[in-house]
Amino acid sequence: MNASPAPINLFEFEALAKERLPKSEYDYIAGGATDEISVERNRRAYESWALRPRVLRDVSALDLSTTVLGTKVNVPVLIAPCGGHKKAHPEGEVATYRAAAARGTIMAVSANSNSSFEELANAATGHLWLQLYPFRDRGLTKSWLDRAKGAGYDAICVTLDSQWPPKRERNIRNNYRRIRGVNYSKPGAEAVHAPRPAGSEGGSDPAATWKDLEWIKSQTALPVVAKGIMTGEDVDLCAEIGADAVIVSNHGGRHLDNTLATVEVLAEAVAAAKGKLEVLLDGGIRRGADVVKALALGAKAVFIGRPLFWGLAVDGEQGVVRVLDILREEIEITMAKCGRPTIGSIDATVLVKAPRL
Amino acid sequence: MNASPAPINLFEFEALAKERLPKSEYDYIAGGATDEISVERNRRAYESWALRPRVLRDVSALDLSTTVLGTKVNVPVLIAPCGGHKKAHPEGEVATYRAAAARGTIMAVSANSNSSFEELANAATGHLWLQLYPFRDRGLTKSWLDRAKGAGYDAICVTLDSQWPPKRERNIRNNYRRIRGVNYSKPGAEAVHAPRPAGSEGGSDPAATWKDLEWIKSQTALPVVAKGIMTGEDVDLCAEIGADAVIVSNHGGRHLDNTLATVEVLAEAVAAAKGKLEVLLDGGIRRGADVVKALALGAKAVFIGRPLFWGLAVDGEQGVVRVLDILREEIEITMAKCGRPTIGSIDATVLVKAPRL
Amino acid sequence: MNASPAPINLFEFEALAKERLPKSEYDYIAGGATDEISVERNRRAYESWALRPRVLRDVSALDLSTTVLGTKVNVPVLIAPCGGHKKAHPEGEVATYRAAAARGTIMAVSANSNSSFEELANAATGHLWLQLYPFRDRGLTKSWLDRAKGAGYDAICVTLDSQWPPKRERNIRNNYRRIRGVNYSKPGAEAVHAPRPAGSEGGSDPAATWKDLEWIKSQTALPVVAKGIMTGEDVDLCAEIGADAVIVSNHGGRHLDNTLATVEVLAEAVAAAKGKLEVLLDGGIRRGADVVKALALGAKAVFIGRPLFWGLAVDGEQGVVRVLDILREEIEITMAKCGRPTIGSIDATVLVKAPRL
Amino acid sequence: MNASPAPINLFEFEALAKERLPKSEYDYIAGGATDEISVERNRRAYESWALRPRVLRDVSALDLSTTVLGTKVNVPVLIAPCGGHKKAHPEGEVATYRAAAARGTIMAVSANSNSSFEELANAATGHLWLQLYPFRDRGLTKSWLDRAKGAGYDAICVTLDSQWPPKRERNIRNNYRRIRGVNYSKPGAEAVHAPRPAGSEGGSDPAATWKDLEWIKSQTALPVVAKGIMTGEDVDLCAEIGADAVIVSNHGGRHLDNTLATVEVLAEAVAAAKGKLEVLLDGGIRRGADVVKALALGAKAVFIGRPLFWGLAVDGEQGVVRVLDILREEIEITMAKCGRPTIGSIDATVLVKAPRL
Repeated sequence: MNASPAPINLFEFEALAKERLPKSEYDYIAGGATDEISVERNRRAYESWALRPRVLRDVSALDLSTTVLGTKVNVPVLIAPCGGHKKAHPEGEVATYRAAAARGTIMAVSANSNSSFEELANAATGHLWLQLYPFRDRGLTKSWLDRAKGAGYDAICVTLDSQWPPKRERNIRNNYRRIRGVNYSKPGAEAVHAPRPAGSEGGSDPAATWKDLEWIKSQTALPVVAKGIMTGEDVDLCAEIGADAVIVSNHGGRHLDNTLATVEVLAEAVAAAKGKLEVLLDGGIRRGADVVKALALGAKAVFIGRPLFWGLAVDGEQGVVRVLDILREEIEITMAKCGRPTIGSIDATVLVKAPRL
Repeated sequence: MNASPAPINLFEFEALAKERLPKSEYDYIAGGATDEISVERNRRAYESWALRPRVLRDVSALDLSTTVLGTKVNVPVLIAPCGGHKKAHPEGEVATYRAAAARGTIMAVSANSNSSFEELANAATGHLWLQLYPFRDRGLTKSWLDRAKGAGYDAICVTLDSQWPPKRERNIRNNYRRIRGVNYSKPGAEAVHAPRPAGSEGGSDPAATWKDLEWIKSQTALPVVAKGIMTGEDVDLCAEIGADAVIVSNHGGRHLDNTLATVEVLAEAVAAAKGKLEVLLDGGIRRGADVVKALALGAKAVFIGRPLFWGLAVDGEQGVVRVLDILREEIEITMAKCGRPTIGSIDATVLVKAPRL
Repeated sequence: MNASPAPINLFEFEALAKERLPKSEYDYIAGGATDEISVERNRRAYESWALRPRVLRDVSALDLSTTVLGTKVNVPVLIAPCGGHKKAHPEGEVATYRAAAARGTIMAVSANSNSSFEELANAATGHLWLQLYPFRDRGLTKSWLDRAKGAGYDAICVTLDSQWPPKRERNIRNNYRRIRGVNYSKPGAEAVHAPRPAGSEGGSDPAATWKDLEWIKSQTALPVVAKGIMTGEDVDLCAEIGADAVIVSNHGGRHLDNTLATVEVLAEAVAAAKGKLEVLLDGGIRRGADVVKALALGAKAVFIGRPLFWGLAVDGEQGVVRVLDILREEIEITMAKCGRPTIGSIDATVLVKAPRL
Repeated sequence: MNASPAPINLFEFEALAKERLPKSEYDYIAGGATDEISVERNRRAYESWALRPRVLRDVSALDLSTTVLGTKVNVPVLIAPCGGHKKAHPEGEVATYRAAAARGTIMAVSANSNSSFEELANAATGHLWLQLYPFRDRGLTKSWLDRAKGAGYDAICVTLDSQWPPKRERNIRNNYRRIRGVNYSKPGAEAVHAPRPAGSEGGSDPAATWKDLEWIKSQTALPVVAKGIMTGEDVDLCAEIGADAVIVSNHGGRHLDNTLATVEVLAEAVAAAKGKLEVLLDGGIRRGADVVKALALGAKAVFIGRPLFWGLAVDGEQGVVRVLDILREEIEITMAKCGRPTIGSIDATVLVKAPRL
């Protein structure tokens, strides 16, 4: 690290990362679809709930641990599946995973990671999920499911909001070219699996339907997590085909603009889940208070995406550790001040709607 | 085109057009009545609805075509009747019409067009509507109805919100003088047909009543579209006199300020229409998502006005084509991400009110 | 006038007046109590209602005349009782009254006018009201009531919101000293009638109660207008003691800050009036649309205060005429576009609440 | 004082204090937890209620006196317990207390005062409360209760919102080090009583429960005031253990961010109190109107915190006197203009919700 003072919150991490990253990389990370209304809304929506402080409830022994799909995590903050961590630090996903493992949380590895699934599995002793799409080629999907199982991954995360390419205007202006990840089976595989129109990211099949997710579920013994759900109707359908969890996500505002914030649709998703599957969330988490709010609204845990890149850009593995530690400290304060010594004690009474003033 | 990068969205088209047009022309196009509150509101109101993404619904074959008054269009975006396209490009309405025809949509030709109705009808093979006012002189109205029929126009669009001249302060400050169009039957006709006070645009009769619209309907075999409707009551009255469609419009905020946005009154208009007439909309359409929102609220299609001038100013016919193509691409993304492969599948469940944060 | 372009709306009148007036005089006119929240709110509240355009209703012959306490006015905009017009123009109230008379409206003359009631009555042939306070000295009050009657005034306007001096911070900072008006019976009268603490404006008795207003009503044959009413309860009490009209007013935000806008409490006042007395309004009127909104909510007419000073500062009598003419033109547009040819046809259906976007 | 004009409101006091104080001290006083959302909200929330002016109610003899826990105060504004007044003026708490006594109000003395409780008690003839925490060491607590009684204090104020250290980012950036107060029994006592993690302010026991507050109540004959209450549930619990009053407080936004404003939860607290205990409030009081609003919502009196430091920084004892006098003058105006001559006449009808415009 240089002589800048160490960042004391995630916003300062972002500012420092912005200084250090090439503009086009920073923009790729920061940007979203079209007008970036959803990017902003994901963040600001947390302010529409206020915390209700409680006193005299013995908060001397806080316990931030919980479980996600049966795996114990030390903090209810997981690493979202984001492609290409090497754009922020030469050690890429390896650094991120070591940080996650060091802090006792789960990392979801992107289909477009810069390290192979297997290389990552060997980098630390922690918990990994593999993220993929419903590819056009079921053979590719099946081979990835098998690779995940073989490499000891804990779950399969299927990203469902990428069946059509987004319009990210910062990238168009920067003429940004993403390097495809190393996990595809053969050179040019991405061309085969590209959605219509060609050349877009992700390789997700635009023709995929719920049958495809059902088929994925049938092809693996690992739990299946459906990512990119924003409606109660789709939570219902996930439950119907036997998914184990959903991630309420609008892809950080990077695919479709003009959605509600994820935290705004969380209650609808939790109600639809009826306890049949776990509900997770990503989008806009920057403060410990955001985490507590999401948990109070029914999320089992949350993910961070952009902040992991900021941590990497600032200080590699140690930067990601610090990002996680800052969130932990802020979650502790929030839990203590609201009289909630355990994750299980965080319920809806922690919150009240905060009218816009 | 010069060396500026090609605009990638309609806002960039506007910025580039603003550079290229004389200030008074840009202001004439951009401006609205008095404080321009309605101009701004037309735009911002779209943000008060959020889109609800849906997944796994086979969006591999999107179909954006629909029909408007029985005419098939390839995209639910029509060209609004705006006077004087030559202020933005020497080819004027001819360029616009060629673009509309090339992209399979309808152009409504303004009473104040710079090319005559007949010249335009010969410029391309597409679909044209003729816009007029309830003139004081029914003979003039009748002659135009006959000219429209003779020239192969598909419909008559009667603008109803211009019975009294507006106060457009940019034009007053710029001492802006509009050139009257070429369609009037004799030199000085506009003086005859000017509303009170004299000299205002449009030539609409301030004494006109519903009887006049009923008379117009009786004088033509073409469908009659009532433009400038902002209340359920007036939709009712349109239905009563047998109009075939209404355009929910506040004239782009150019006639009466302090109205709601058109998209805000759309649901009221659709409810009042009870399926008896088609409901169209103009006002503030700048993104494909806006189009999908209007359709979800019950519009059969929408119109663009100011953006056609931006397209013309930037690159003539090709500029208008590009404007339409950008909207098409954005509509496609929105439909795909919301799991709506056809225009018919866009319904109210696509939307949810987005509280102001 | 100098070479500045003639102002085309009241905001431009204000800007020009600000250039021409000494800062302390401009500030005295523009300023309000403490944080000036009510000054701003008076203005912005109009935006919380939208107009509902209507079409095809024969607006060829607009009639803006109405009656106020039986007096016919040509436009529903009256001149509020504001002290010291000479601060804006050497002709002071005489110029204002001539403008009001020329345009067929009523002028309410302030207790603190720079011309005596009698001098004004001789300056033109129009309609005048006399404004006073419930003075400590009933003899003074009685003598003014008699003077008003003798000079041919049409009504007595009793200002009720000034029983305690306000805190106007601009004036404190500017060390502003108001010149007491010429109407008081003897030098130093203002000291006798000053409220507690001494030296404040107005001379209103802080101990006054409804009995005092009842007494005033009993002492004059002229109609009595209660000014400064902001609640339904006080409208009730006005009706009980037989007042003929109320002016819903927060004194332009100049006495108590943190109130609602006058237009926001208008409906409450109108409901309480139950038709027993006329309801008038001042506060924030800057556009013709504001006037129409107030009328739609039940006001019989409205007053302008600050704009008369801007008119005076810009061009004396002709400036005030122009201010009134601008409002008339804007009222005409609004009436025509909403399909309301007469003042009587302006009702609640002209409006709809406009949600903040 | 220097040549700056004397501040005429509390905002000007703040601006002048900011000029005079070292940045780190100003920041310590001004700052709050994390994003300082609650600091800002405490202030802005007052604007969400409007005052309802009333007229003709005899306001010639205003009486601002009331009682708090049986003690008569001349004005319903008390001095909040804030540590270390010497950071703003060399005379510290002594100056503040003299000002409070001069103006007939109560001063709550912080556990972290720069003058000992006993020294303060001798500095003037007024009313003092002693503030403490539920310390880990009940012996320390007991000794302070006895000292308070011995020194003639009127009440015990137990701060309950400080069981966990806050995150105040200004202080972190400024590397701010607070000097521990003089009241602790032995050098290093603060280490013994520090919460987890060590080194934080306050010495409050994170393991404390309602039993501890009940025990405090049992150990003193003085009234016990619970400070830092933000929910109806905790008011209930305070009533249950026999507390005499609560202070609705979020510690000026200095402990947990993202809460509602104190004035927003006041009604909930008052409802829960059911008249069994007095409800007081601190947070964001800057204008007399704020005081009247809080009283109208059911507070018996309010506290000022930051403004006392501004008063001290500007002019020591006389600065605090002036701060209190400004508030008194503004309360008088508000009471007079709302027709409320006594504190007891201020009820809920003074207020109406002010929709955000």
